[in-house]
Amino acid sequence: MIQTKLIPRTTEAHEPPMLIKNLLAQSLKYEPQREIVYRDLFRMNYVEFNRRVRQLANTLTDLGVGPGDTVAVFDWDSHRYLECFFGVTSIGAILHTVNVRLSPAQILYTMNHAQDKVVLIHEDFLPILNAIKDQITTVDTYVLLSDKVYADPNAGGDVPAGFSGEYEALVKGASDQYEFPDFDENTWATTFYTTGTTGNPKGVYFSHRQLFMHTMGLLTYIIGYEAMSFKGSSDVYMPITPMFHVHAWGFPFLATMMSAKQVYPGRYEPELLLKLLITEGVTLSHCVPTIMNMLVNSPAAQKYRENLSRWKVLIGGSALTKGLAKAAMDLGITISQGYGMSETAPVTAIVYLNEQEKQLPIDEQIDLRTRAGRVSPFVEMRLMDDDGNFVPHDGQSLGEIVVKCPWATQGYYNDPERAAELWKGGWLHTGDVASITPDYWVMIADRTKDVIKTGGEWVSSLDMEDALSQVEGVAESAVVGLPDDRWGERPHALIVQKPGFNLTADSIKAGLQAKVEQGELHKWYVPDRIVFVPEIPKTSVGKIDKKKIRSEMKDLILGTVV
Amino acid sequence: MIQTKLIPRTTEAHEPPMLIKNLLAQSLKYEPQREIVYRDLFRMNYVEFNRRVRQLANTLTDLGVGPGDTVAVFDWDSHRYLECFFGVTSIGAILHTVNVRLSPAQILYTMNHAQDKVVLIHEDFLPILNAIKDQITTVDTYVLLSDKVYADPNAGGDVPAGFSGEYEALVKGASDQYEFPDFDENTWATTFYTTGTTGNPKGVYFSHRQLFMHTMGLLTYIIGYEAMSFKGSSDVYMPITPMFHVHAWGFPFLATMMSAKQVYPGRYEPELLLKLLITEGVTLSHCVPTIMNMLVNSPAAQKYRENLSRWKVLIGGSALTKGLAKAAMDLGITISQGYGMSETAPVTAIVYLNEQEKQLPIDEQIDLRTRAGRVSPFVEMRLMDDDGNFVPHDGQSLGEIVVKCPWATQGYYNDPERAAELWKGGWLHTGDVASITPDYWVMIADRTKDVIKTGGEWVSSLDMEDALSQVEGVAESAVVGLPDDRWGERPHALIVQKPGFNLTADSIKAGLQAKVEQGELHKWYVPDRIVFVPEIPKTSVGKIDKKKIRSEMKDLILGTVV
Repeated sequence: MIQTKLIPRTTEAHEPPMLIKNLLAQSLKYEPQREIVYRDLFRMNYVEFNRRVRQLANTLTDLGVGPGDTVAVFDWDSHRYLECFFGVTSIGAILHTVNVRLSPAQILYTMNHAQDKVVLIHEDFLPILNAIKDQITTVDTYVLLSDKVYADPNAGGDVPAGFSGEYEALVKGASDQYEFPDFDENTWATTFYTTGTTGNPKGVYFSHRQLFMHTMGLLTYIIGYEAMSFKGSSDVYMPITPMFHVHAWGFPFLATMMSAKQVYPGRYEPELLLKLLITEGVTLSHCVPTIMNMLVNSPAAQKYRENLSRWKVLIGGSALTKGLAKAAMDLGITISQGYGMSETAPVTAIVYLNEQEKQLPIDEQIDLRTRAGRVSPFVEMRLMDDDGNFVPHDGQSLGEIVVKCPWATQGYYNDPERAAELWKGGWLHTGDVASITPDYWVMIADRTKDVIKTGGEWVSSLDMEDALSQVEGVAESAVVGLPDDRWGERPHALIVQKPGFNLTADSIKAGLQAKVEQGELHKWYVPDRIVFVPEIPKTSVGKIDKKKIRSEMKDLILGTVV
Repeated sequence: MIQTKLIPRTTEAHEPPMLIKNLLAQSLKYEPQREIVYRDLFRMNYVEFNRRVRQLANTLTDLGVGPGDTVAVFDWDSHRYLECFFGVTSIGAILHTVNVRLSPAQILYTMNHAQDKVVLIHEDFLPILNAIKDQITTVDTYVLLSDKVYADPNAGGDVPAGFSGEYEALVKGASDQYEFPDFDENTWATTFYTTGTTGNPKGVYFSHRQLFMHTMGLLTYIIGYEAMSFKGSSDVYMPITPMFHVHAWGFPFLATMMSAKQVYPGRYEPELLLKLLITEGVTLSHCVPTIMNMLVNSPAAQKYRENLSRWKVLIGGSALTKGLAKAAMDLGITISQGYGMSETAPVTAIVYLNEQEKQLPIDEQIDLRTRAGRVSPFVEMRLMDDDGNFVPHDGQSLGEIVVKCPWATQGYYNDPERAAELWKGGWLHTGDVASITPDYWVMIADRTKDVIKTGGEWVSSLDMEDALSQVEGVAESAVVGLPDDRWGERPHALIVQKPGFNLTADSIKAGLQAKVEQGELHKWYVPDRIVFVPEIPKTSVGKIDKKKIRSEMKDLILGTVV
């Protein structure tokens, strides 16, 4: 960095650090009467919420939690979790949002790795805890989170042996006076674990400053620019991606700062989600395509058209298809896609239609709305080739997305090797291959490890699979790149055909050839070899296992005579 | 500050500093086709603006400006000034926004004190420069800003002797390639001078981080909470408080980040202001009450009702009266008051009507809209008594407003004594006396030095003058506190009576007594002595000179037998 002249500071002059408590403080100023709702079980306004966050801070302090200690939470989306977002962090402790979808062995690994000291756990997850409790090395205190107390205030006394108490009882018994201290804005605020295809889960982590800035970035984009037609403080927010997954994409911090009404649905149950959506007047959510798909196909959807038409939803996690976008928009839902990852806290792109694009017919809008989005405010995004050179933003050239932004994890906890790989050359490497247009649209093509590098060009295996899916009779396909002496790599395809068809490699190539002639495909995209298989290898979470295909099926593929 | 655990950082990991260039970068992403307009002389879109800011950066670099150098600007509100807001600061230099309303001697003082190296000066201000040029000690380069070049591109060559050139010609001749570097976010970005009643002007200064955070505060409040019914990016902004005065209250930074259309009116000429307001579709401005008064009383106002009804205006600088607020609202103008000072960059409060208050009848809304505002996001505001104790926020108790916020000047440049006074006890002392309600409304009562401390109570001299103005026959009044053995101080009044009246001290006291009996005034508010004078002493800017009254008229007042 170049040397400049810094502002001089008078001895007693004060400049506040950017802390999560400063987001919280705004919730009391303007619309503190707005509510935070938990299922059909509990509701409170922001005055009460601020009191409870302080009661939680006192509870934790009484349990021995101090600055730098890690508090692990196992919960569905709840007001309690929101209280932890603010209460745990504002005393200088670290919030570990446990990914309850990992296997018990992985959860155990993350708890020991993060050095959890106190665990707050919902009763639904006690079976997991019981399976691993003996091997947990650093936890000394357990607190039960129970939904039963909302029906029966006395239910809280009934906690498992070794537990220090039940959350509601502890919080209600604590003082609501707590002056949150100032501390360094680079203080560690949250941590959680992300899994790849190999190796142990990796711990990402975020500072107060980073979460503050992520909130400012969201604010600038979705409220300032109305990227989601979000109107600000008067919207009603309900998350439908878990709070343990990248802090529910950071929205709870923004919604709290804006004292917007918030609705926490607990465990996701389609009927309850829909009920809350209607009765609480929800206008803003985020979810993965699967949930949206379930909702638009629910028989109730048509019935509640009017309510759905005020609903704005950010889609992420996996690609939004045009069909789903269309179905949602036909119901009046304003749908936008976003792009990000655990390492980027997460938002780095969201769909934004500019003045001209808003005038486009709905089908053309859908083409845009199903892109990964436009690069978010304060995010610098580039495309990089294998040699670390930047690739032009021409909407065509492919490169790995690399980013710099004020909310990127600065490493993986206690994992210097993978951290150095993530930050190679001073840019965060996403592992996603994309093109970017001159007007900042991002179009994801593939994962870096799956992109096929042939004759100096990058070919997206996903684009190829998309093209193959349009050949009549193809039920499923997987395209991988395998080494080739002349071209470096060449694409090859596995095909599952639909019953009753009798496809051949030639008939499929003929189908693709039509696209080549129409200029939709480059001729070097056409796979060299096409192999028919009864079934395509998948990973445990149902994704095509291209790594396995490349290693274990290589000989089969290359041995195939086309 | 307490010790906490900071986030670990991988060697190559990057976290961007908060710099003004990051606000600028957003203006290219989403709506770069929007325009920046200068009078009826010049217009460009954000693509061109970004190019020109880089051309300016190269121009300055060629003129020898480097990090830490100070560039002084004398200009009316213009696109050039906006280019300086970004171009000067983003190369690490310091922008000195010269207050052209100061006397030439004061301007000279500020230029030497700030150690200006390069001066960009509009032709209108050359007479000032000529009067002081010989005594300027640090400037080595002068650049002319001329409006003539927009009509005649060749006019730029005609610059005074000793000048390095004309702005447009230099900028157009420079390369538009400039990669703004990263540097410490505490880098000094801007400086300007504020005058008190005594002593030399004081230099306040702001860092990149502070101006970034002020932008976030404005964004949160006026767009996020719609405190001014500001809709964000699609508004059209025109400043009507000078850019040299606290960066036009920070709005140009926000408007640029939002790529909102911006209209710069040059020198304020009522007819042109109104014309631009109409033809360019302006929706957002800020001004002092005097300008608003002029506009609502202009014969054209009724004619342009329809255009005025989309106009949202923030009022500051001096108190907004109920009459003016009503007149503006009757024209459909959305009017809001704000509160701040040069030392606070400036915004610390803006009127915000919450959900309930928006439902109030217009007269009650006006009572609220003429308050100083509600405490802004990220601002911590308290009331302090003479002993440094906090005074309760009950809407009644008076105390000096003290603040902490992320955008407060950290001192006065090279003036340690007054800087230490400003920051006594770790809070910025505003010198304003106010009460604050539990729901964050701020009501200014007086300046600290004018408040009357009697029997342990603080009495607002302004409130007293307001009460006196309602007594029939009183044309003008001034209330000051003078020492009293029993009560510490007691209030006394000077009165100018209207022609044809024959008031006495007793008749005035009787008028006030009626208010005491109705519970509107405490009885100890009634002045001890009332002195009739032909004229009330004023300062050079037309304010009541209470200092002079207290010192020079003390004997007259205390000698008066009531």
